[in-house]
Amino acid sequence: MRELLTSWQGVVRAEWVDYNGHLNDAYYLVIFSYASDALIARIGLDAAGRAATGHTLYTLEVHLNYVQEVHEGVAVEVQTQILGVDAKRVHLFHSLHRQDNGALLATNEQMLANIDASNAETGPRTAPFLPAVAALLLPLALAHADLPRPAHAGRSIALPAVRERPSCASGR
Amino acid sequence: MRELLTSWQGVVRAEWVDYNGHLNDAYYLVIFSYASDALIARIGLDAAGRAATGHTLYTLEVHLNYVQEVHEGVAVEVQTQILGVDAKRVHLFHSLHRQDNGALLATNEQMLANIDASNAETGPRTAPFLPAVAALLLPLALAHADLPRPAHAGRSIALPAVRERPSCASGR
Repeated sequence: MRELLTSWQGVVRAEWVDYNGHLNDAYYLVIFSYASDALIARIGLDAAGRAATGHTLYTLEVHLNYVQEVHEGVAVEVQTQILGVDAKRVHLFHSLHRQDNGALLATNEQMLANIDASNAETGPRTAPFLPAVAALLLPLALAHADLPRPAHAGRSIALPAVRERPSCASGR
Repeated sequence: MRELLTSWQGVVRAEWVDYNGHLNDAYYLVIFSYASDALIARIGLDAAGRAATGHTLYTLEVHLNYVQEVHEGVAVEVQTQILGVDAKRVHLFHSLHRQDNGALLATNEQMLANIDASNAETGPRTAPFLPAVAALLLPLALAHADLPRPAHAGRSIALPAVRERPSCASGR
């Protein structure tokens, strides 16, 4: 259980490929969203669990790094590490790899919130994880607490402002 | 031209909605990817421009914040701000809004790289923007240089590590 979870395995589908002939940026997130669904099922909130409890998870924030392009028909898989948990949130790190040689294709950090969607009057609202869900989630999180933190976790995106250094113009 | 660009308008499609009955997290990025395509066309790299030059743009990194859920059939639009440009990269900020009341639904920061895909021997490689592309891109970037920086730009994702503060356990 101290190992990363293999949360999704499949093949790059034709309908996920764009005009550049490779897996489209948005469809990496479609794959990672399937991987999150697998983890959500593992902590008891599959379709039956959602129907029984009225609880589900919503995505608050994601960050993706695209490392290598990948083409239609290639077999890929997602490895998942739990970086942190609090009363209402789980912080995940997915990485997408080729199945044939393990090469890293992309990473995806996610913050998910537990939602109580059972109150029709208020609509869906954040709520603490139910005890039965926490009882499945915390052992996974604790098992991953000693794993090395991924290099791409906690990143922010930046580039010098164009007015300060218009290097594009100076290069012409 | 100092205003944000309206880069995509459309309606939330049935096939983009997930088991929570709202626009799925990954399909926000499908919409934002269409918005980037519109900007890429505006700087001369639509299908005809790509065919003529062998240049295209690849996505290096993205960050999304989910602000409000949205349901099938709702009319939405993307506003786009250029945050920065260098010789090979453009840094964008998209925001998704309802068309009826302008409410903010999500934001998406993107870093894109210019790619020369014309050399079959080397395969696609990063390369400086072509002068004709830079001549279309730089005026847009300079027009946006004085706009306020979006609050969600430059964010990173964080949560206390579970071993330091297992607040989920303490809340049970």
